[in-house]
Amino acid sequence: MKLKKTLLLSFLVALFFACEQEPSKVTVSSPEQQNQIEFLLTATGQPAYRVLHNNEVVIDTSTLGFDFQGHPTLSGNFKIINTTTNNKDETWTMPWGEQTEVRNHYNELSVALQEQTTSARKLILHFRAYDDGIAFRYELPAQSGIDSLIVMDEHTQFQLTGDHTCWWIPGDWDIYEHLYTTSKFSEIDATTKRNHPNLGQTYIPQNAVNTPVTMRSSNGLHLSFHEANLTNYAGMTLKVDGDQLQMTSELVGSDRFGFKAKIPLPFRTPWRTIQIADQATDLIDSKLIVNLNEPNKLGDVSWFEPKKYVGIWWEMHLDKSTWDLASGRHGATTENTKRYIDFAAANNIKGVLVEGWNTGWERWIGFEDREGVFDFVTPYEDYDLEEVVRYGKEKGVEIIMHHETSAAPRTYEQQLDTAYSLMNRLGIHSVKTGYVGKIIPKGEYHHGQWMVNHYRKVLEKGAENQVAINAHEPIKATGLRRTYPNAIAREGLRGQEFNAWAQDGGNPPEHLSIVAFTRMLAGPIDFTPGVFDIGLPSKENNQINTTIAHQLALYVVIYSPIQMACDLPEHYENQPAFQFIRDVGVDWEKSVTINGEVGDYVTIARQEKGTDAWFLGSITDENPRTIEVSFDFLPKGKKYQAIVYVDSAEAHYKDNPTSLKIEQMDVDHTSTSTFDLAAGGGLAISLQPIEE
Amino acid sequence: MKLKKTLLLSFLVALFFACEQEPSKVTVSSPEQQNQIEFLLTATGQPAYRVLHNNEVVIDTSTLGFDFQGHPTLSGNFKIINTTTNNKDETWTMPWGEQTEVRNHYNELSVALQEQTTSARKLILHFRAYDDGIAFRYELPAQSGIDSLIVMDEHTQFQLTGDHTCWWIPGDWDIYEHLYTTSKFSEIDATTKRNHPNLGQTYIPQNAVNTPVTMRSSNGLHLSFHEANLTNYAGMTLKVDGDQLQMTSELVGSDRFGFKAKIPLPFRTPWRTIQIADQATDLIDSKLIVNLNEPNKLGDVSWFEPKKYVGIWWEMHLDKSTWDLASGRHGATTENTKRYIDFAAANNIKGVLVEGWNTGWERWIGFEDREGVFDFVTPYEDYDLEEVVRYGKEKGVEIIMHHETSAAPRTYEQQLDTAYSLMNRLGIHSVKTGYVGKIIPKGEYHHGQWMVNHYRKVLEKGAENQVAINAHEPIKATGLRRTYPNAIAREGLRGQEFNAWAQDGGNPPEHLSIVAFTRMLAGPIDFTPGVFDIGLPSKENNQINTTIAHQLALYVVIYSPIQMACDLPEHYENQPAFQFIRDVGVDWEKSVTINGEVGDYVTIARQEKGTDAWFLGSITDENPRTIEVSFDFLPKGKKYQAIVYVDSAEAHYKDNPTSLKIEQMDVDHTSTSTFDLAAGGGLAISLQPIEE
Repeated sequence: MKLKKTLLLSFLVALFFACEQEPSKVTVSSPEQQNQIEFLLTATGQPAYRVLHNNEVVIDTSTLGFDFQGHPTLSGNFKIINTTTNNKDETWTMPWGEQTEVRNHYNELSVALQEQTTSARKLILHFRAYDDGIAFRYELPAQSGIDSLIVMDEHTQFQLTGDHTCWWIPGDWDIYEHLYTTSKFSEIDATTKRNHPNLGQTYIPQNAVNTPVTMRSSNGLHLSFHEANLTNYAGMTLKVDGDQLQMTSELVGSDRFGFKAKIPLPFRTPWRTIQIADQATDLIDSKLIVNLNEPNKLGDVSWFEPKKYVGIWWEMHLDKSTWDLASGRHGATTENTKRYIDFAAANNIKGVLVEGWNTGWERWIGFEDREGVFDFVTPYEDYDLEEVVRYGKEKGVEIIMHHETSAAPRTYEQQLDTAYSLMNRLGIHSVKTGYVGKIIPKGEYHHGQWMVNHYRKVLEKGAENQVAINAHEPIKATGLRRTYPNAIAREGLRGQEFNAWAQDGGNPPEHLSIVAFTRMLAGPIDFTPGVFDIGLPSKENNQINTTIAHQLALYVVIYSPIQMACDLPEHYENQPAFQFIRDVGVDWEKSVTINGEVGDYVTIARQEKGTDAWFLGSITDENPRTIEVSFDFLPKGKKYQAIVYVDSAEAHYKDNPTSLKIEQMDVDHTSTSTFDLAAGGGLAISLQPIEE
Repeated sequence: MKLKKTLLLSFLVALFFACEQEPSKVTVSSPEQQNQIEFLLTATGQPAYRVLHNNEVVIDTSTLGFDFQGHPTLSGNFKIINTTTNNKDETWTMPWGEQTEVRNHYNELSVALQEQTTSARKLILHFRAYDDGIAFRYELPAQSGIDSLIVMDEHTQFQLTGDHTCWWIPGDWDIYEHLYTTSKFSEIDATTKRNHPNLGQTYIPQNAVNTPVTMRSSNGLHLSFHEANLTNYAGMTLKVDGDQLQMTSELVGSDRFGFKAKIPLPFRTPWRTIQIADQATDLIDSKLIVNLNEPNKLGDVSWFEPKKYVGIWWEMHLDKSTWDLASGRHGATTENTKRYIDFAAANNIKGVLVEGWNTGWERWIGFEDREGVFDFVTPYEDYDLEEVVRYGKEKGVEIIMHHETSAAPRTYEQQLDTAYSLMNRLGIHSVKTGYVGKIIPKGEYHHGQWMVNHYRKVLEKGAENQVAINAHEPIKATGLRRTYPNAIAREGLRGQEFNAWAQDGGNPPEHLSIVAFTRMLAGPIDFTPGVFDIGLPSKENNQINTTIAHQLALYVVIYSPIQMACDLPEHYENQPAFQFIRDVGVDWEKSVTINGEVGDYVTIARQEKGTDAWFLGSITDENPRTIEVSFDFLPKGKKYQAIVYVDSAEAHYKDNPTSLKIEQMDVDHTSTSTFDLAAGGGLAISLQPIEE
């Protein structure tokens, strides 16, 4: 990896610190002065902070603190014993990502505090001011006689300054696969607002939301709250106080241990982050979350290559086949896999996922004791793993492994060495993992510290074996892909499969227009786009609530270094629109969010890495919309052939979803065009440079 | 092959023949009485005929006769010695074609004549009246003491009844690759009308036209003149007498022998044919020419399969590579061929043509002595024939052989056994032959009897070796494909390659809208459509004068059981429109000409054999045009998904030829739609049945 050699040091720490007096306020501003964090101690010596954006308060005084088991609450009587400032302007390289080079430019303020009581505990707070947001974390230094602490609660407040419009999912401890609700902050009611008939695992103990949660103030400022570098700690939900317009950290706990987290000292919590943007689009372009993580620990990861994939998966959701063998309709057969390999090889697709290949699926969902069922190395008798791997290699297609743990992580951990050794021997470099069901042992939750550590262990073991991880039912992304690039993608949202069977009729047209500004701020998404047989004729009460152009656009709108073309090969036959999926890149030199509003629409353009090709995707919600695209993102002086895939005038996600128009035009960086998107519609453009 | 068992015998011969008196007029009418042929003897006893269509004279009294070497002119003093009538209603099956079943339904009148002079020569005239036209031929029976005749001239008149609008090419004895001229009959000037700067071989000895020549009368009747079953005889041009509005047969001669043809007795000449249609579209649907040929002589020909192909050919016309090795830019290398095979295999294309694979191309065009140069079995050193055949087979792709004879047919005939044995051994079942240049020996012409017999010998040798022939610089098609189905296609018109380098700027937009109603009436055309890189950036003064939608439409408009996708694989990359070429059929159950006017536009729909898929193609000339399509050709009660490839609103063949719109819609047999075609534009629709 190459780092940009020239660091621009044009920054200024606005530090108002008078040594003579009790310090009242310490401040750090972002390099371009857009954001400012004020640290202060309250009258009772409690640490607190405020955030200003362009000199306007956007987070009002919010206090910070902890409850530890066996210790007094850590919240007041502090004084500042030291402050240090730091600045950084580095440019680092992503092995794959939305862009190749990422600038990490911030000013940092660290405030060391000590209690003015007999316990005299120390606490260090680190604040980073970026131009695209702010972040802070707690550091609990090694203290005499204490080598670990048991966190009963973290008390991090976020005091809003208005009753913002929010896009939120419930603060579920087990699953993120909820539809987003759009409501005023004061109207958030995460426990009763929605039924969850399609979720086998939910635990929503209070009125809280999961992050990223995105808000828009009455004057158009956008805020998104999340966390970065979630390591050896519990995931954070945000408890909602609608009256006070206040959110407070509520960590996911463990009923088994009766606490939230056990931490060794010294310890640094994950960063608590607030992305701040004048325009919604800036949220997407922000690299705050990855920047707050440590550099690549794995070194050369070229053993994994970003790729498109197809696989034996959607056919299960269409009830055409099953994961288990006993049904007599087993999907993962050698023959069927070869069919997918042939299709992939013929269509510029480099991966084939095979679900249901290994024994154990007869005792999966609905069984209490799911430990020791899957072993991740024993294929069903009609699946010749070695043969499909060989056949795939011959055709330039890599099998993507599948490990459904059925939320029995202890079984998976026992098998990790064996399972990954097999993959390594076969040259299989990625695995889709799954954690469907309530966690075994009982009392643990998907988003708690114990599982956070499990997911990390899988990443580390994966890296040792040159295996990249695409986790479903995962812990949320917190930018760790910077440190562990083998964290290639994950689910962690309501995916495409809900469209096949959800009793509420599937994802509404607005779904991805919200996801792009919420879940996607966390990191790559394995959404599995590309349904062409949108009407789902085999499903009486379900269809995809988008047009086919919308499905195409998702290959650009959603970032992931692995992108599934999820529909059945036979549904791509005769489809000129499939050319877009053949062509579209999966790894990017640059990304530009052109326009968009949360929950309404979004347009993103991305330049493929290693080529001069650009791709553009635009989606709209249930409203038809005219999208204006300026092609000024193209390099100057170069002409491009644009192949435009857009809804036809008659298209509508409900009753005419496959009506598509494909057109060619020549454009350059001075061109501007408008495109009419249908209700639930989309626009996808492939831009290939014209060689003169 | 299956013949329809039920012959409908609902016909009536209108025969006015009074035995007592000198016969003045014998008549035969077509089954539905649309066309009537009157045979008569003139006052001098010269045989003559008239043709009536719906009781109106469309060919007025036209005389018939011959000049034989060493014999008096055979033209007068005849009397009728016998007349016989015959009728036929058979349905025969094409192994491949525009349609599977062909109805051959006619009434026939044979008139036996004898000279009332001492020579007392006999002549039999056979007239067939079809509802789609008429035909007649001469029979020269065995006569005592004469076992052969030398034809110095055939005097077959076609007396027009008006100064029709004609679409014609010159009566060139060597090449058909002329642009069509549209003019009044009286204004035909084939010898000076056009320069032919792009033709290496032309011989236009008088003001004559080649057939098929198509005309439209002032009241909208369409006539097309041609010949059927050209066997052991010279090709016929039609000499033009603009003053008399008369055409007379002018056979292509041999300067070497000083005659037109030498014929054994008994002998039957080719049929002289006139297709007669109230609407231009009926000309295309007419099966007159094949019906006038003998049934399949070859039996099972399933060793050949209709196919699409790509090949090493267009890249020579773009000057990217050459046929010869010496240039250092040799196209036909093993590696390049494998690249085309890979592309074909990935895209539902079953053939790869390789030109320039064999030694000899260094002594080709421009050399006087071209005999003994090519041997058709010796590859250039960088082309491993066995290996590319093996590689192709592995991928389901058959190599298409190429034999350029450089118009040295004696050399080719000497090598036929060797060359075709090699092909047979390798399982190569088709060959593209070429006859570029003036015929060797000097004095022979491509369209003379000597060459007619050569072309036939090639067909017969081919059939013996399971080799199908696609002849370029051929003799014109005269329906022999019925008898020899291995006559799969031929050139015989100004093809796509002229667009790459013709000094007149290439084929005008109207070209194929004329060809469909002229040259195509003769039989399958290897036009090699499918240029996507229409601007030809490497060619300063040339481009394709059609839009890309027009190129797509040609796969349906032009019939051939082999259809090339002629552009370079790299030009099909990223092109959603290429899906149409992947999908489109090459063998048809049914064909329907929906609308069209000669030289203006034409719309044809064809049902793929063995599937329920339909494809539709429509092209227009230099005028933009709104085409109305009624989908009533679709089977009742079946819904179809139509994928429509049509010019965008901004498209124009000149400056915006690749602007294309692809749309999907559902249609059934009650649907009607209009489509806007650009100047030089087109429309291609793929119709796939929707399984309910």
